Amino acid sequence: MNTDERSLAWAFLSHVAQGPSPALSALIDAVGPVEAARAIREKELPTPLREAALQRGREDRSVEHLDAITRCGGRLVTPDDPDWPAFRFLAFGGGASSAPPIALWVRGSASVSDLCDRSIAVVGTRAPSAYGRYVTAEIVSGVAAAGWTIVSGGAFGIDAAAHRVALAEGSITVAVVACGVDLPYPAAHAQLLDEVARSGLVISEYAPGVSAAKQRFLERNRLIAALSEVTVVVEAGHRSGARNTVKWARRLGRQALAVPGSVESATSVGCHSMIRQGEASLVTSAHDVLAAAAPMHLPFGDSSDREPDEVAVAAALPTRGAGVDVERIAQRSGVDAARVRAILPRLELQGEARVSGLRWRRAKQAEAS
Amino acid sequence: MNTDERSLAWAFLSHVAQGPSPALSALIDAVGPVEAARAIREKELPTPLREAALQRGREDRSVEHLDAITRCGGRLVTPDDPDWPAFRFLAFGGGASSAPPIALWVRGSASVSDLCDRSIAVVGTRAPSAYGRYVTAEIVSGVAAAGWTIVSGGAFGIDAAAHRVALAEGSITVAVVACGVDLPYPAAHAQLLDEVARSGLVISEYAPGVSAAKQRFLERNRLIAALSEVTVVVEAGHRSGARNTVKWARRLGRQALAVPGSVESATSVGCHSMIRQGEASLVTSAHDVLAAAAPMHLPFGDSSDREPDEVAVAAALPTRGAGVDVERIAQRSGVDAARVRAILPRLELQGEARVSGLRWRRAKQAEAS
Repeated sequence: MNTDERSLAWAFLSHVAQGPSPALSALIDAVGPVEAARAIREKELPTPLREAALQRGREDRSVEHLDAITRCGGRLVTPDDPDWPAFRFLAFGGGASSAPPIALWVRGSASVSDLCDRSIAVVGTRAPSAYGRYVTAEIVSGVAAAGWTIVSGGAFGIDAAAHRVALAEGSITVAVVACGVDLPYPAAHAQLLDEVARSGLVISEYAPGVSAAKQRFLERNRLIAALSEVTVVVEAGHRSGARNTVKWARRLGRQALAVPGSVESATSVGCHSMIRQGEASLVTSAHDVLAAAAPMHLPFGDSSDREPDEVAVAAALPTRGAGVDVERIAQRSGVDAARVRAILPRLELQGEARVSGLRWRRAKQAEAS
Repeated sequence: MNTDERSLAWAFLSHVAQGPSPALSALIDAVGPVEAARAIREKELPTPLREAALQRGREDRSVEHLDAITRCGGRLVTPDDPDWPAFRFLAFGGGASSAPPIALWVRGSASVSDLCDRSIAVVGTRAPSAYGRYVTAEIVSGVAAAGWTIVSGGAFGIDAAAHRVALAEGSITVAVVACGVDLPYPAAHAQLLDEVARSGLVISEYAPGVSAAKQRFLERNRLIAALSEVTVVVEAGHRSGARNTVKWARRLGRQALAVPGSVESATSVGCHSMIRQGEASLVTSAHDVLAAAAPMHLPFGDSSDREPDEVAVAAALPTRGAGVDVERIAQRSGVDAARVRAILPRLELQGEARVSGLRWRRAKQAEAS
């Protein structure tokens, strides 16, 4: 357990802020965490901090919180830590809630900065359609197989589907939650969050024991966007928290992506609206998502050298499961079955496609390269 | 029958050009149709015209063509005619095939310029899905009910669905074809084209008897775009003629619109690609199409004064059929059923919604205003 003076100060400051606090961040930047904590304890505060922090300022629960995070197998990651993903927060703009977190309470032993170095947020409605679940699986499996971390919010629906598919791929995933990482929230996801923490991370900017609240979900959305290269919304209704995450992604200078669907589906209304308003770019596949996240590191070759049919067929290859037949690839790519039959052996020679019986899938080495 | 000297000259020039010809258009602009026709007959041609026009230049079939167009109940509309939709072609840019037509061979008695004054092109794949047919019906019925002409290409699939729904709405529709308007092409659409010509128009820039050919389909697409305020692609595959029409719409300074669909559907691949590339804007309803075509003349009120839920519910009301129930409107709009129940009576008071039993639809007067 880390109980040196600075750690105790960070734990105290994190709980005093209970979310983003530009004024507190500025104070810490100016005088350091130990002095900032002393100033708060002794009520020597700059005006903007006085009202917000004084109530909680009286009780110092830093020892208790550091004890709790250790007991649930976690730690407090602070800007002192080499694991602090500082570069990710550089883009934070102005505004009341746009400050970086004071510190991160983290469950799981993986490195925060490593995991978040190549990460993609996949979020969406709590009540997805079968189509939404299917597309989540397709996109997450493709993105995870290419070596990217899936970040989501641990909520019902698209969030849970994204975490589960990543875990099923044997891939690591990060759940950013709106309460203490020691709390099983939602209760039905206690086991899912345990599994996420086993290989990946459960992250929160709230101290252990802090319960979820409306404002914290919005602040949590900002953290999801900040920890990810791009944010993908698979399905979102007319009013959806996913739109808030997209707003954050854009404010942080990151790309927001949205998946289209039937114009009759209420769970695609939010995605269509974001695409129409220019808030998010349309994506239809893991290939599109990877192209947006890292256009220089596409999992298969340089598509500029290729004819469009070849790119379309390569993008239509599933990255998991037993593979699919030529007819299905033709359907998914929009390329004639006869052309698909001509293109697949070429992709196989290039090490990008693999065949078993009549079923084709993307070759693993191509994904990770 | 119009057999004065100028009409004969226009008929001759139209057949000599057989499609757009910037050089011939320039010659006609400079010396008038009669003198241009004489120059071609007597081979006194400017260099750019010599090769292209001389073969056909020898035979003058203008009397025969004017006779044929009269026999099939049509006429030749020329730039001399007050019905010439000249304003529509002002935006034509440079390039080999971007000239306005020399003249228009027209079947049907309706006015070309009147019909095309408020017109929307609805085009797409020859092999649509059930979803594509359904969305075509929804969009065309809404747009037609608001008093707009539906322009399409008379082809199989989305084109035919668009014409049929417009006719079923009791609305006029225009088929722009890639052959002489006297030819039933495709043969299976002979009756459909007859019906289109009865209330609306079948239009071609090719003289009677000229058969359809690949280049003419592309030139025809340019004419569809030029005669319409906006072009909507409902469904389009990976390679689709609809994309060519969209290219023309944009080149002519008009908006192109595309409908999204399932990312698994081959018939939405082209639409998604155009939206992603910024070639077309995403639309999900007749309301979206009308907003793009005439943002100042929305069929229901000024949406800027309204809360988003009210706009969404109004847009979800069907314009035809017996209407739909609250649950269905909730599903289509993405608004809670309880809120839909609160909003509908308000829309009814404003004269925009009409109820019969438990089924709601858009009020007719609201559409046409």
